Amino acid sequence: MPKPLSNPTMRVLQVMEYLATRPSGTYGLSELSRSIGMSKSTCLSILNTLVDAGYVIQHPVQRYYSLGPAAIAVGQAALTRFPDVTDVFPVLKKLARETNMTATCEALAGDQLVVVASAGRGDPLSGIGRTGVRLPFSPPYGAPFGATAELEAFRDYLDRADPPLSDDEVKRLVRSFEIGRQRGFFVGLDLPADHPLHEKLAEAWTARSPDRKLQSIVAARRMAGYLLDDIDLAAIYAVSSIQAPVVSRGGTVEIALALLAFGWKATGAQLIATAHKLVAAAEAVAEGRPHRR
Amino acid sequence: MPKPLSNPTMRVLQVMEYLATRPSGTYGLSELSRSIGMSKSTCLSILNTLVDAGYVIQHPVQRYYSLGPAAIAVGQAALTRFPDVTDVFPVLKKLARETNMTATCEALAGDQLVVVASAGRGDPLSGIGRTGVRLPFSPPYGAPFGATAELEAFRDYLDRADPPLSDDEVKRLVRSFEIGRQRGFFVGLDLPADHPLHEKLAEAWTARSPDRKLQSIVAARRMAGYLLDDIDLAAIYAVSSIQAPVVSRGGTVEIALALLAFGWKATGAQLIATAHKLVAAAEAVAEGRPHRR
Repeated sequence: MPKPLSNPTMRVLQVMEYLATRPSGTYGLSELSRSIGMSKSTCLSILNTLVDAGYVIQHPVQRYYSLGPAAIAVGQAALTRFPDVTDVFPVLKKLARETNMTATCEALAGDQLVVVASAGRGDPLSGIGRTGVRLPFSPPYGAPFGATAELEAFRDYLDRADPPLSDDEVKRLVRSFEIGRQRGFFVGLDLPADHPLHEKLAEAWTARSPDRKLQSIVAARRMAGYLLDDIDLAAIYAVSSIQAPVVSRGGTVEIALALLAFGWKATGAQLIATAHKLVAAAEAVAEGRPHRR
Repeated sequence: MPKPLSNPTMRVLQVMEYLATRPSGTYGLSELSRSIGMSKSTCLSILNTLVDAGYVIQHPVQRYYSLGPAAIAVGQAALTRFPDVTDVFPVLKKLARETNMTATCEALAGDQLVVVASAGRGDPLSGIGRTGVRLPFSPPYGAPFGATAELEAFRDYLDRADPPLSDDEVKRLVRSFEIGRQRGFFVGLDLPADHPLHEKLAEAWTARSPDRKLQSIVAARRMAGYLLDDIDLAAIYAVSSIQAPVVSRGGTVEIALALLAFGWKATGAQLIATAHKLVAAAEAVAEGRPHRR
């Protein structure tokens, strides 16, 4: 039975998320309502209410809208539920600086992965790494969470694959997860054909309106082989991301760190060296102390 | 002309703020809808939508609701607009530890002050210091912002006083602001009669439903004399808060730090010593580097 949802609530979130995923932009009413696909009057009354409550501020002269301090306050309150994330920001900055990649922190919430923090912006293709972007928690995404999930949650994860996984795919995934769990990190390969799609993919999922065409592209990526299993030190790999779980004291994985490196070509040895930096950072976050070399 | 507001948007914010101002609580549907004063079915469809979008998570077994990772993500995006706040968290923790008081950071958004960060929780009366709490930016609140406002903004601030300020009150306020600006901090006195009201006051303003009775109490506090002007080193003062502006490079004040010390009795010398810790912390935030002694 589908749960009753609230369309007005969705519209409020659409407005907030438009601003959240483009924090450096300056958007007026016309541009906002057009981009979101909402009537100007609906958009205006939502914006007025958000401004009134401090979630959005309007520039006193230029009149454009951006996120306000009440949004910070709610975010800070949410952080108390995800204490590991509090320690993550300096760690991500350091990782991004050392690797010249985008470093992100993803949190798992039900059937979604949310980018809760991000540092570095070297890569124009890394729309997927913007704070606030959501991805479905279904294969091939979310390996650090899937690989450490309890049996029942793992089955739900596999069941959310669209189209459904074949028996062979399940086998391959289970093997990839086993390897990744043992070595402490997961490597997503770069499939050049879908480069231009990263940005669109992230946008589509952010808007909570998964386009069937995009879903089929996700499926195609999955088929083509996404996770790198055995690493040959001398071979050259095209890597899209490296991901490592942050394992809490209780043994659960609620957040993961990732390095986004679309188009990065590296030897197996270079790949492992970079992955070890990521793993050290994830371990430092788990232990609640700053990452030191 | 009043701006058109959106009631459904207000209801969404009420739900989020209920959770945001009580981040450690565990609330189910019945308690939430009853506390907010909303029908169960309305509350449920809002909650479902917020859960669906990752702003709220529901405990898989106990079914209670709390803020989710999408709220963190929006907060992080908002922080890029208030860069000073990013550096504020370790500073507040250190201040709270050193003073054994609640240390807060308030941001100014239009006609509201929002507590965007808070550390330490020694004081049961400091409901006013909880992250997410809003106060009206009108006398006697918001001295660090009022005292540094441009002329037009300062007049708006005075005009928002309710009931209106008398000429004598304006004169006294202008003198208090001048003294506070020169020494770098503002001291709010503790008026014992309104102790039990702090919590209610904060709740009322958070809910954006300013109760007229509470407003008249604010007015009474104002009348009784709120800001401490000349400090006698040997005298004993009952202090409710010390506040200091964080002056950005451009000379504007968008955030302020405060120490909440309801019921604290201190000599003028002790008060000044504590205030200087606060001022040093505010200066360190303004310069974007960690606070060191």
